[in-house]
Amino acid sequence: MTDDVADSAVPHRHTLGEVGLVTPQDFAHAQPFTFNSGQTLPGFTLRYETYGTLNATRDNVILICHALSGDHHCAGLHTPEDRKPGWWNNLIGPGKAVDTTKFFVVCANVLGGCQGSTGPSSTNPATNQPYGLAFPFVTIIDMVRSQKLLLDHLGINALHAVLGGSMGGMLAMQFAIEYPAYVRRVIAMATTAREGAQAIAFNEVGRQAIMQDPEWNHGDYAKGGGPRVGLAIARMMAHITYVSDASMDRKFGRRRKGNGTGGAYTFDVQFEVESYLQHQGQAFINRFDANTYLYITRALDHFDLPQVYGSLEAAFAPVQAQTLSVGFTSDWLFPPEQNRAITLALLRAGKSASYAELTTDLGHDSFLLESEELYTLVRAFLEGNAPAALDYSI
Amino acid sequence: MTDDVADSAVPHRHTLGEVGLVTPQDFAHAQPFTFNSGQTLPGFTLRYETYGTLNATRDNVILICHALSGDHHCAGLHTPEDRKPGWWNNLIGPGKAVDTTKFFVVCANVLGGCQGSTGPSSTNPATNQPYGLAFPFVTIIDMVRSQKLLLDHLGINALHAVLGGSMGGMLAMQFAIEYPAYVRRVIAMATTAREGAQAIAFNEVGRQAIMQDPEWNHGDYAKGGGPRVGLAIARMMAHITYVSDASMDRKFGRRRKGNGTGGAYTFDVQFEVESYLQHQGQAFINRFDANTYLYITRALDHFDLPQVYGSLEAAFAPVQAQTLSVGFTSDWLFPPEQNRAITLALLRAGKSASYAELTTDLGHDSFLLESEELYTLVRAFLEGNAPAALDYSI
Repeated sequence: MTDDVADSAVPHRHTLGEVGLVTPQDFAHAQPFTFNSGQTLPGFTLRYETYGTLNATRDNVILICHALSGDHHCAGLHTPEDRKPGWWNNLIGPGKAVDTTKFFVVCANVLGGCQGSTGPSSTNPATNQPYGLAFPFVTIIDMVRSQKLLLDHLGINALHAVLGGSMGGMLAMQFAIEYPAYVRRVIAMATTAREGAQAIAFNEVGRQAIMQDPEWNHGDYAKGGGPRVGLAIARMMAHITYVSDASMDRKFGRRRKGNGTGGAYTFDVQFEVESYLQHQGQAFINRFDANTYLYITRALDHFDLPQVYGSLEAAFAPVQAQTLSVGFTSDWLFPPEQNRAITLALLRAGKSASYAELTTDLGHDSFLLESEELYTLVRAFLEGNAPAALDYSI
Repeated sequence: MTDDVADSAVPHRHTLGEVGLVTPQDFAHAQPFTFNSGQTLPGFTLRYETYGTLNATRDNVILICHALSGDHHCAGLHTPEDRKPGWWNNLIGPGKAVDTTKFFVVCANVLGGCQGSTGPSSTNPATNQPYGLAFPFVTIIDMVRSQKLLLDHLGINALHAVLGGSMGGMLAMQFAIEYPAYVRRVIAMATTAREGAQAIAFNEVGRQAIMQDPEWNHGDYAKGGGPRVGLAIARMMAHITYVSDASMDRKFGRRRKGNGTGGAYTFDVQFEVESYLQHQGQAFINRFDANTYLYITRALDHFDLPQVYGSLEAAFAPVQAQTLSVGFTSDWLFPPEQNRAITLALLRAGKSASYAELTTDLGHDSFLLESEELYTLVRAFLEGNAPAALDYSI
């Protein structure tokens, strides 16, 4: 997801209805964890945030799952001086679509991440150096299982809903498959049950940009160093896939930097869109780890529900949750038909599922943007009655 | 354009109807040439090929204009052992849509190119080193003016048609604007009257990949050396934009390299689409110059007929040629509406123009692929009567 979309929520940050100041917390799981690959860690940490209050039955919980470049900080501010609130602040807060006066919201940085959770940039106790490529391969299912351990630690009995866009939508679906009795509702937006060749291709170009940067050094670099050039290139390219031709044309068109309209014969920045993309790349390398980028894009590439379970219907067979899939018309990374396919497979598997397609021209990142239509949809789905057949015991 | 599409023409290469063995030639223009930027060269060379025979009135000429990564070798073989014929061999030859028994076909590597025409990798007589960034900035209009000098040198009185896809379509349009009395027909395919923000953005990511590669060294590198890593990354990314989600899914889907279906936890190549893209990158760096890539993508970014002439209608005001624009439904780099817009502006300017939209799922490079529908369209347009008002004098 892009770095700048959360900006849109800034004007409201001091008004009523904001989560306000929040403090990230760490969950240290001090027991061995076996990854889907068979590799193990002696333990791991997940950094997370919570908003709202857990109810007496410990089941008014909404788990938010972040996308590739997101993190646990999805609402509120860390300090009063923060320029940006959490990345889904427009959706989450008192009286908002995800209403923190009703729900207890949990969001964790994924296992393999670089914003406080254990990942390749964490210190390997065996060497006292960053794990680098010694870190186990992470899959979406590993992310889900580790977050379930966090929820158990928090004494949560059931999820009112699990909610995510893009990779977050993959986690949400996987959660409902892995823990069917635990998950009452799923909202999966701008996502896919498996990446197609084009999405794998874009990820691979990004990985090559990183791995071919001499500073990558087979993943062995000091914290804060590493393949900054390659990571910036990967991010610039990926950013184009998060937006749309129409939105870039509206935002930048062919406007020149400064006030010229032509005649500037140079390879330096000339068009505003170039300057914007370079900013995206530079902002990213200051907050993201290149090895995490490799690991998480591989997790995305490997996500393939039909292949793992035999078919998408078979994948969804255990699901007890009600599911809402949301596609966005201008999303060309995980287009509407891939989101609709999720709902169709759920329906064929006899599940309670619905699909909404929102007309936007903002591309893949539409799930992050201000939309009353989306808010209404999310609110109505979250406040509907849970299906009668649900078993809340674990 | 991609490196592999010409493969499709290979099976026919020894059958009747082939151009056969061809020899590139060099046109050395030994007089000063002033670029649109005001910069000058003391002279330049264009490498070109011709097929067919020039008629007595010296006007049965079809000029073929190549795309970003193309060259003068658009049909036939250089040696009997050549594995690939020229890049538009399926379209050009005896009895083909561009029938070399009727037409004299000319195709030149563009000024600024790296396949024999003078460009940044050519030797700067002032230093005896490659020009590098000392080469003048090239625009589409410079490419057109230099090719007109070649046509004059060949004693050609008029163009029966000028024909090109992608950047080649830009040259074709610019030719008809610059030399209205000289050009009877234009076929511009998969092109645009100006690049939008997304196309500029992809070009910029490619340029950054090149310029941030330490081997680029501000454009100062030995011939055959230079930023090979950055150029390969640029090409891999650009390649994705030349095809389509659907065609990549059909060709590769999620197939694994070798015969595994999962469990391969590695950042090495796993998916066939990754292997294919890496091959595209590697093949490209062995035949293309990184500085030329910078110069030509900048020429593409700067191409903006509405801005230069005030409006697209004004740009087309001098045109005397009949024009056929061809859009391809799956082209998301220069989508059908950008091609249709060309025809609409020509019609508003009172010109003879038509538009055809071909349904393909092969993306931008559809103009290069085998299509009886396209052949029929091109043949019919080329063999129609020239408009009566044409003035053949120069």
